[in-house]
Amino acid sequence: MGHTYPGATVPFGAVQLSPETDSISYELNGKYNGEVYKYCAGYRYEDKTITGFSSTHFSGTGHSDLGDFLIMPTVGKLQLNPGTATHPENGYRSRFSHQNEKAEAGYYRVKLDDYNILAELTASSRTGVHRYTFPQSDQAHIILDLTAGIYNYEGKNIWTYVRIENDGTVTGYRQTNGWARTRTVYFAMKFSKPFKSYGQKNYDGQQSYRGFWRKFDQTKNFPEIAGKNLKIYFDFDTREQEAIEIKLAISPVSQNNALENLEKETGTLSFDQVKAKAQEEWNKELNKIIIKGSDTEKVNFYTALYHTFISPTTYMDINGEYKGLDQNIHKAEDFIHYTTFSIWDTYRALHPLFNIIQPKRNNDMVKSMMAHYQQFSMKMLPIWSHYANDNWCMSGYHSVSVVADAIIKGNYNGDPKEALKACVATAGKREYEGIGYYIDRGYIPDEKNGTSVSNTLEYAYDDWAIAQLAKHLGETEIYNEFIRRSENWKNNFDSKIGFMRPRLADGSFKKDFDVLSTHGQGFIEGNSWNYSFFVPQNPDELINAMGGKKKFASKLDELFTMHLPDEFFADTEDITREGIIGGYVHGNEPAHHVAYLYNRAGQPWKTQAQIRRILEMQYKAAPDGLGGNDDAGQMSAWYILSSLGFYPVAPGSEDYSTGSPAVEHAVLNLENGKTFEIEAVNQSPKNVYVQKILLNGKEIKDFTLKHSEIMNGGKLIFHMSSKPRK
Amino acid sequence: MGHTYPGATVPFGAVQLSPETDSISYELNGKYNGEVYKYCAGYRYEDKTITGFSSTHFSGTGHSDLGDFLIMPTVGKLQLNPGTATHPENGYRSRFSHQNEKAEAGYYRVKLDDYNILAELTASSRTGVHRYTFPQSDQAHIILDLTAGIYNYEGKNIWTYVRIENDGTVTGYRQTNGWARTRTVYFAMKFSKPFKSYGQKNYDGQQSYRGFWRKFDQTKNFPEIAGKNLKIYFDFDTREQEAIEIKLAISPVSQNNALENLEKETGTLSFDQVKAKAQEEWNKELNKIIIKGSDTEKVNFYTALYHTFISPTTYMDINGEYKGLDQNIHKAEDFIHYTTFSIWDTYRALHPLFNIIQPKRNNDMVKSMMAHYQQFSMKMLPIWSHYANDNWCMSGYHSVSVVADAIIKGNYNGDPKEALKACVATAGKREYEGIGYYIDRGYIPDEKNGTSVSNTLEYAYDDWAIAQLAKHLGETEIYNEFIRRSENWKNNFDSKIGFMRPRLADGSFKKDFDVLSTHGQGFIEGNSWNYSFFVPQNPDELINAMGGKKKFASKLDELFTMHLPDEFFADTEDITREGIIGGYVHGNEPAHHVAYLYNRAGQPWKTQAQIRRILEMQYKAAPDGLGGNDDAGQMSAWYILSSLGFYPVAPGSEDYSTGSPAVEHAVLNLENGKTFEIEAVNQSPKNVYVQKILLNGKEIKDFTLKHSEIMNGGKLIFHMSSKPRK
Repeated sequence: MGHTYPGATVPFGAVQLSPETDSISYELNGKYNGEVYKYCAGYRYEDKTITGFSSTHFSGTGHSDLGDFLIMPTVGKLQLNPGTATHPENGYRSRFSHQNEKAEAGYYRVKLDDYNILAELTASSRTGVHRYTFPQSDQAHIILDLTAGIYNYEGKNIWTYVRIENDGTVTGYRQTNGWARTRTVYFAMKFSKPFKSYGQKNYDGQQSYRGFWRKFDQTKNFPEIAGKNLKIYFDFDTREQEAIEIKLAISPVSQNNALENLEKETGTLSFDQVKAKAQEEWNKELNKIIIKGSDTEKVNFYTALYHTFISPTTYMDINGEYKGLDQNIHKAEDFIHYTTFSIWDTYRALHPLFNIIQPKRNNDMVKSMMAHYQQFSMKMLPIWSHYANDNWCMSGYHSVSVVADAIIKGNYNGDPKEALKACVATAGKREYEGIGYYIDRGYIPDEKNGTSVSNTLEYAYDDWAIAQLAKHLGETEIYNEFIRRSENWKNNFDSKIGFMRPRLADGSFKKDFDVLSTHGQGFIEGNSWNYSFFVPQNPDELINAMGGKKKFASKLDELFTMHLPDEFFADTEDITREGIIGGYVHGNEPAHHVAYLYNRAGQPWKTQAQIRRILEMQYKAAPDGLGGNDDAGQMSAWYILSSLGFYPVAPGSEDYSTGSPAVEHAVLNLENGKTFEIEAVNQSPKNVYVQKILLNGKEIKDFTLKHSEIMNGGKLIFHMSSKPRK
Repeated sequence: MGHTYPGATVPFGAVQLSPETDSISYELNGKYNGEVYKYCAGYRYEDKTITGFSSTHFSGTGHSDLGDFLIMPTVGKLQLNPGTATHPENGYRSRFSHQNEKAEAGYYRVKLDDYNILAELTASSRTGVHRYTFPQSDQAHIILDLTAGIYNYEGKNIWTYVRIENDGTVTGYRQTNGWARTRTVYFAMKFSKPFKSYGQKNYDGQQSYRGFWRKFDQTKNFPEIAGKNLKIYFDFDTREQEAIEIKLAISPVSQNNALENLEKETGTLSFDQVKAKAQEEWNKELNKIIIKGSDTEKVNFYTALYHTFISPTTYMDINGEYKGLDQNIHKAEDFIHYTTFSIWDTYRALHPLFNIIQPKRNNDMVKSMMAHYQQFSMKMLPIWSHYANDNWCMSGYHSVSVVADAIIKGNYNGDPKEALKACVATAGKREYEGIGYYIDRGYIPDEKNGTSVSNTLEYAYDDWAIAQLAKHLGETEIYNEFIRRSENWKNNFDSKIGFMRPRLADGSFKKDFDVLSTHGQGFIEGNSWNYSFFVPQNPDELINAMGGKKKFASKLDELFTMHLPDEFFADTEDITREGIIGGYVHGNEPAHHVAYLYNRAGQPWKTQAQIRRILEMQYKAAPDGLGGNDDAGQMSAWYILSSLGFYPVAPGSEDYSTGSPAVEHAVLNLENGKTFEIEAVNQSPKNVYVQKILLNGKEIKDFTLKHSEIMNGGKLIFHMSSKPRK
């Protein structure tokens, strides 16, 4: 359920070169096919066959797209259909086994049993490098299946184009209408060995104007091919153990740019050299945090850290050009332009983590969001954006949190006033998902919007973040307006039952309501039990509203210990049974801050115990190691921060809430040259309780660590014990 | 049948803004719909309704495409379907009458009767300007129907995109798969008055990912729209007689470039100012030849001259950028890049005419052809190219004639050796339409190709043109090879019957053969009677082969006097009954040089009489004034040259064959500053025979005028008479 992929990428790379284990259609008989969900990342561990290796993947998402430029090597009779999982021999796919599979940072390999081909993958930022070691054959093929893709359906390809530049170089593009409504990825590929011949099959049926088909035989060795459903193949003679390498670069702008990306990144480099560079890059990034601990702990920690450094992904050619939301070509002059913003997830811990350990990149990510805002005709910051599109997936306008958090933490070198303006404009978009009602009434009538409560709660938090930014910039009027809006959560709080609850247009609460159910109750990816704690911006008032600290802590206890009946579990999205603890759903994001709320309710030892329990239960370096989608790194970022001993309950503030570190010792190598050291004295799996916290020798008593305290460098010591300090 | 359009364009302009009188599908029940042929230019004089005004049109073609960005103003209830010719009230189309219609160079206007709207059109090179004068209404609309197009069919739109930049500016693109397989035109439009609201209807059915549809109401005032079947509308309140102007610029590269084109060409100009500039441009170009004659003669002459200055069309943004055949963006550094090359037609007289009167543009057209060659992965010069595509329509590789003719006439400032290389490469493309057979055997077996004879004849002429260029450049080996190939016409000449005739693979002539029939006999757009004279490169040997001058002249007599039975006329493409004289088909191109062959057969007076007869019969300034498609200016170029008294029988040579001028007097204002004067002494409709020709006082006795003699300036005097000088 993690929806991560095992293939090769470099940190925040544009290319994610990874195997696909099946080709499942997004639609079946015109309806959404639930099976496709398992293939968000292209790869499913349970599968026995591989259909090929494609250049682009999301890491950990709960919806998908991409899977561009599927390549499959075969020997023997040419077969252009993928075949089926049960009858792989009827198509180009191959059986494989996990024994013959290895995944490293920046490297992946697998033996394709049906062809006796060793497939290896590595990557630079914009270029994937394939190496296929063939048996002796005079019928070796490399197939480029342009009809393949993730979350594909009949008609998803708007257009594809392939141009054979010469007998070793191919360029083209794939243009799709999917999660990104209008998306084109250009490619350039170079073979290490010239192909002896090539051909294509176009499954479109006859194209309208047939004249040009008469003039040439376009099925064999014809160098300009275009259509919606193309498959291309390249033929080779191979010696025993002969390796053919393919470099395939992508570009959001043009084939020429793809060629330039390929040349400048990997021009004369061999597969092994590209791999060595990729692994060097990973080592550099992963060394930003050095921990001590058991091997298992290290595997867990660096797996999580690896996952946090995958997306957002670079979306810009080596010459700085990228296609903007306005479909024009822009140039990023002084920053790296990123895409793949799963912000509903990542504003919580991933971007805050970046503010500590990747501040330069986070600065550029905020600039990328600002470019989005400027290029979008509606002038909104991104909601869920990829490849010059916003799919507006999930709720809230949490870019404002990312923007505010970065600026407040001193980590934005653009114009902060312009950034505030973008936040205010986004929050003022009346026509967007109930915002007009929210502004006018302080809540969204349930009749008007299916996720009226979670929207209101999330808008209220976001408005608080805007208010913090306004305060930071001395914009009192904006502060006043938005701090007022940030209290709107109260309008959905039903004090009679002590839960958040949908309200109707007439002001009354929805009658038919179940606090355990997820669907149709006014929430998205969470039930009222989880969302009722979603006031990260003002837990003290929430505690009051819920009857004071004691009652509040008991309610948290109930959340972590209750049994969620199967009927309600079934409609909880994107998680497994292992993804929940009692009624607490860690596999989805809305509750990610909840365990830290015990700190405010006067029972910090329960925060400590729950955090350690979640760290242990919800993260394993195994095929089913995550209790829910990794969500573009958010789940992993939670792991990193929590295992270091602190967490940003409300990004947009300098404050981190302390928990219980899982590491024995950690050193954060900060970009400013300073180091921040964390030590857990008397650490053990049982010693989950914190007796004392010392920052540079001075005790922290309020369970709060400040961002600047980390960035100034120093040492944080946790004294651990098996007994809670009450 | 002329397939010209009445709308507004400037000389060689990128925009051709013109009315559409119906929307006929290219396909009906999956098959070609013959009716669509009538709408090649969008406009049919017989029609009673107008469906709108679109930005791009071909002039005079026999197949079509384009019709981008159909705009229609209406008042009253919004209707987004075009309605039908019989029930215009059921759609947005309007009735009109020719009384309320006026077409000038660079200007068109028509009254839309159903709405009481006066529609006016004018243009700069890349920007069309619409002016709609409305009645008083609070329901005035301007519709942009992106589903409309010429030679449209279900699925022709690959993708369209519209972005509302603000309440007066709209950008977007239309991407189609038609005659051009892969073609995208970007647009930017500005309204002179802000629209009060706007909306869209998407006829695609639901798009795959529906998430983004939930977040906004995208049908009204939503500024980013994309799909395959979109219609957009803009609403206005109008006062009585209020004019709304729309500037709509196009670009082959991007919306930004379209905006730049719009701003730089027409930024602050009013409709009337753009019109004045357009007409000034036309006056400048049309004044390159100044004739004396009756008003009818002038109307005919300048109508023809107008038609010769429409295409090839500018295909380059004002910043020099264009999309090349390789789908990359290129910049034309030192020339205007053109497209719309209908070369099978235009190599004959249009490009030769340009070598006299538009040498700078013809130089740039050759450069555009060379860019095509360099950008096409197969390395071929264009056959029939438009918008970064080759549709390979018609036969031969006549670009080589255009290239050779320009270079031999001293009218190419690129690298002539590279140009020769391009010609040789093109002629060596074995896999293209029988060229391999042609090279190996000297003819194309009829079994292998349906137009084996016309291909062989045309290749042979083209090869002669390559030989002339090679000779000009001192490339003896290439000369020898291609002058040998230029004799291949002999392989299809059946001396037994005295006609060109298909040959089979075994070397024998096709048995079942009819010299009058056009289809299935080995020819394209012509029967053996017309094609048997197609040896423009070596008429003397053809005359020998046909039994000497006398027999040859008699055969020509028979051609011009025979009766073509209806059964054979019916399958003669693209012409009307008026388009033929006896069996001579002027409405198609293969015989365009034929009347001049009498000169070589010792009966020049018959050339003179026939030319005058054709000029009079085949060209009228009337709705049915042309006997066949104007073919991108070739028919009109024949008129211009022939009415001036000379014609290039074999482009690639300096020689023009003299005929009988129709003008009384003409002055050619050459770009080199010189003038060439033509006088027809004793001219009258009956005095069609030439008694004497004096060039600068010196008699021409061989009926041959040299290109350099024209370009040096001077005076050519024809002494006319009603009696032939035998």
